[in-house]
Amino acid sequence: MESRITTKRVIIGPDNFKKVVDLSSPSKIGLPKGQIDTDFLSQIKPGNSFEVQGIKYHVLNCDTFDYIMHSLKRQTQIVYPKEGAYIAMRLDIFPGKRVGEAGTGSGAFTVYLSRAVGPYGRVYTYEQREEFYKLAQKNLSEFSEFDNVIMYNKSINYGIKERDLDAFFLDVRKPWEVLEEVRKALKPAGHLGILVPTTNQVSESLAALEKNGFYISEVSEIMLRKYKLIPQRLRPEDLMVGHTGYLIFAKKLEE
Amino acid sequence: MESRITTKRVIIGPDNFKKVVDLSSPSKIGLPKGQIDTDFLSQIKPGNSFEVQGIKYHVLNCDTFDYIMHSLKRQTQIVYPKEGAYIAMRLDIFPGKRVGEAGTGSGAFTVYLSRAVGPYGRVYTYEQREEFYKLAQKNLSEFSEFDNVIMYNKSINYGIKERDLDAFFLDVRKPWEVLEEVRKALKPAGHLGILVPTTNQVSESLAALEKNGFYISEVSEIMLRKYKLIPQRLRPEDLMVGHTGYLIFAKKLEE
Amino acid sequence: MESRITTKRVIIGPDNFKKVVDLSSPSKIGLPKGQIDTDFLSQIKPGNSFEVQGIKYHVLNCDTFDYIMHSLKRQTQIVYPKEGAYIAMRLDIFPGKRVGEAGTGSGAFTVYLSRAVGPYGRVYTYEQREEFYKLAQKNLSEFSEFDNVIMYNKSINYGIKERDLDAFFLDVRKPWEVLEEVRKALKPAGHLGILVPTTNQVSESLAALEKNGFYISEVSEIMLRKYKLIPQRLRPEDLMVGHTGYLIFAKKLEE
Amino acid sequence: MESRITTKRVIIGPDNFKKVVDLSSPSKIGLPKGQIDTDFLSQIKPGNSFEVQGIKYHVLNCDTFDYIMHSLKRQTQIVYPKEGAYIAMRLDIFPGKRVGEAGTGSGAFTVYLSRAVGPYGRVYTYEQREEFYKLAQKNLSEFSEFDNVIMYNKSINYGIKERDLDAFFLDVRKPWEVLEEVRKALKPAGHLGILVPTTNQVSESLAALEKNGFYISEVSEIMLRKYKLIPQRLRPEDLMVGHTGYLIFAKKLEE
Repeated sequence: MESRITTKRVIIGPDNFKKVVDLSSPSKIGLPKGQIDTDFLSQIKPGNSFEVQGIKYHVLNCDTFDYIMHSLKRQTQIVYPKEGAYIAMRLDIFPGKRVGEAGTGSGAFTVYLSRAVGPYGRVYTYEQREEFYKLAQKNLSEFSEFDNVIMYNKSINYGIKERDLDAFFLDVRKPWEVLEEVRKALKPAGHLGILVPTTNQVSESLAALEKNGFYISEVSEIMLRKYKLIPQRLRPEDLMVGHTGYLIFAKKLEE
Repeated sequence: MESRITTKRVIIGPDNFKKVVDLSSPSKIGLPKGQIDTDFLSQIKPGNSFEVQGIKYHVLNCDTFDYIMHSLKRQTQIVYPKEGAYIAMRLDIFPGKRVGEAGTGSGAFTVYLSRAVGPYGRVYTYEQREEFYKLAQKNLSEFSEFDNVIMYNKSINYGIKERDLDAFFLDVRKPWEVLEEVRKALKPAGHLGILVPTTNQVSESLAALEKNGFYISEVSEIMLRKYKLIPQRLRPEDLMVGHTGYLIFAKKLEE
Repeated sequence: MESRITTKRVIIGPDNFKKVVDLSSPSKIGLPKGQIDTDFLSQIKPGNSFEVQGIKYHVLNCDTFDYIMHSLKRQTQIVYPKEGAYIAMRLDIFPGKRVGEAGTGSGAFTVYLSRAVGPYGRVYTYEQREEFYKLAQKNLSEFSEFDNVIMYNKSINYGIKERDLDAFFLDVRKPWEVLEEVRKALKPAGHLGILVPTTNQVSESLAALEKNGFYISEVSEIMLRKYKLIPQRLRPEDLMVGHTGYLIFAKKLEE
Repeated sequence: MESRITTKRVIIGPDNFKKVVDLSSPSKIGLPKGQIDTDFLSQIKPGNSFEVQGIKYHVLNCDTFDYIMHSLKRQTQIVYPKEGAYIAMRLDIFPGKRVGEAGTGSGAFTVYLSRAVGPYGRVYTYEQREEFYKLAQKNLSEFSEFDNVIMYNKSINYGIKERDLDAFFLDVRKPWEVLEEVRKALKPAGHLGILVPTTNQVSESLAALEKNGFYISEVSEIMLRKYKLIPQRLRPEDLMVGHTGYLIFAKKLEE
């Protein structure tokens, strides 16, 4: 299995210059000063460096984080890796698991899930809006390592085809409207994760989860605080992300 | 492959009662009121409930988070799942990856890594103190799904046997003393993650990483803020974890 | 003007020992080992030290923060100084200002306001429950420097006697029920501050403020993160306060 | 005493429009659409509104927070009110207190201190750089209510003239170099507050405070998290200030 990953690279330069490039089609890549050819870049192994107009650049592999944050095309708010990693862990997403997702959005978390469940796992993802569905399809095709994602261009309000899923993740505006369908798709004691941006949605989701026979294990938010990289003057960055969303985790109970 | 996971259960009861139990050896399990037999419990499928002395309990599977937080025996500070999930994501730990770790400690993060890299990946973990080495071995044997962990009862100050690793994670007191050995073990552009509790260690690590030819991509800390689960009175919990550790991420550059 | 402040002292000892004592009535004061007489303590000037059974203690003045956190008797949730200081600043509470408050609770913030507005300012505070009213009275009498607080044992639901106040602070369960009364008591463009513990109360308060002709300037929360005091191993404390309350600030508009 | 405060106003308009203006000299004030004359504006009492080109604006008093955040001219990093209020509280700054400060910087915290200590208190502030000294002088003259600030255009490295101060606040690059001078200026058990931006400075300051006979009571940082003002969709703002500085509080011990 030859993955397409090997054609993506990250170029690192002075003053926090960072650019994700694709070597698969020949082109010129703009740098702060001058440019470089993809053909030339293809010959530089990851970890090594090159110089253009006296400035040194390093070439690195493009990892999943780089791809989601700096390369993937977005037309929607995405699930950021800081939340994505935590959600996947709380939903116990590991190799071999079968996971559902709605909505797909730009596919950032779908990319993450695809890699996490591995070749024997499956990701079933639903997106009702055609433009996002097509965008996610493109984003996945550019970075998927495993052929394990089944995409639907429909809303789960009209039903979820799968049964006995290990986990389901909801990134929709009104999670409380689809809990019955999600229940049908989950295996007994299966995991549910919900991401909503407002406290009002948290309250409404919690009330609906109680009514629909879910055990609620956690409501939380994750704050990532980055530091400047100067050892003699260590201090957090001046600005940080203040909010992305509230996370809700639950498990399906039999009635 | 029959994993031992199926013999662990979580019992959930009123007033946040939560207990992880193992069904593999017959015993009596204490509850807030009365007790229950493992034989009886074995017959209750996850997601279902039982009653003892008029109190209702639910039985759930024990997932990786439950195991690390509520079952694994600790004699050391552990890498908590909130940091573990983020570290694994930033180190691009996915199925098939080959990862190194030092020190093993109680093995909490080793359990996590083992599951994340899956059956075709490998985790190589070093622990110099024999009591922790044995503890981690026991903790792993209780929850490992895949036979993919190689454990060493030695310090990496005396060398790392592996070469060309995708990533290495350091949870040692003086990371700056072992960077040369870690360099040798990593593949070009390979990922390095470091966890240290103090700002002084961050400063010293950053300076050493620069000297040893690493590209430093991030220093950060993760704050997890939990909320009470009452929809009509939504509010964060009164106390939260204020600090576990600082995270440093870097990639190996060729010189 | 001889204030009663001078009779309060803080004793500081090893292992974070901290005790607020009052020298006004003769008594024995318990220490980790042994005890000390108030008569003896009266002769030690603040800043100086004494020894009992080989252990050294320092004597400090009791400041407003010490009094509120370590001496004032509480029967209610109090406004903590970290929020109190910010609230007073946002309400522009400075010497000479006339401020209203409801409810008084244990009087912690009343103590703070009394000191902040000084001898020519006034604090009018309302508490409907008699036991809290009496407690606050006692707490104030123990630490007030200025004779500038007027206390009422009644709810502001039945009206506020004052007019043309510079600012009003609400720490009541249903702030939305009293906004009309507060409007009458405030001067044009006067400041209003509200403290509520839940997001549901924030939403309801915001909606009511809009309806009642207030300009809403801020909703916020303050997180105070303390560090351990070891220079060679600087790091935040393991636990921190995760939540005290949400703050709302508004100004009265003429219609 | 006629203060100059009465000539400052805040104009509030749609889309978070906020502008601080001074009515003392006749001019035209630009609005999002069109403009307004200070003469006309002078006749609108705070709390009331006016219309220009069909858009409604409200007029409010300019309070200390508004002045520091939106009007005061800055050539330096300032002490923000969120830290300022907390520092003043921890230093027990109330009416009548005598406080020292170095360096003055743009004078933002000097303005705050001047108002907090009131007509019978005193603020002694030192700034070695002439341009900041002059700037702070101008900023103070524009908003001071009380004639209680003594400014020095010199560094405290060359000595502090005052003795027996209640509190001192240090906002200088190397606080550890001036602790001896600060000791001489403080009364026994007097308060010391320090603001530094980096962890390295915190470590160095803590070590020096211990050596110089101070009791260290707290190292902390304050995070202010603001929320969007929409009751039906309550959520924190997307970005927040991640760091302004670390706070250190200590008290002078006699030796």
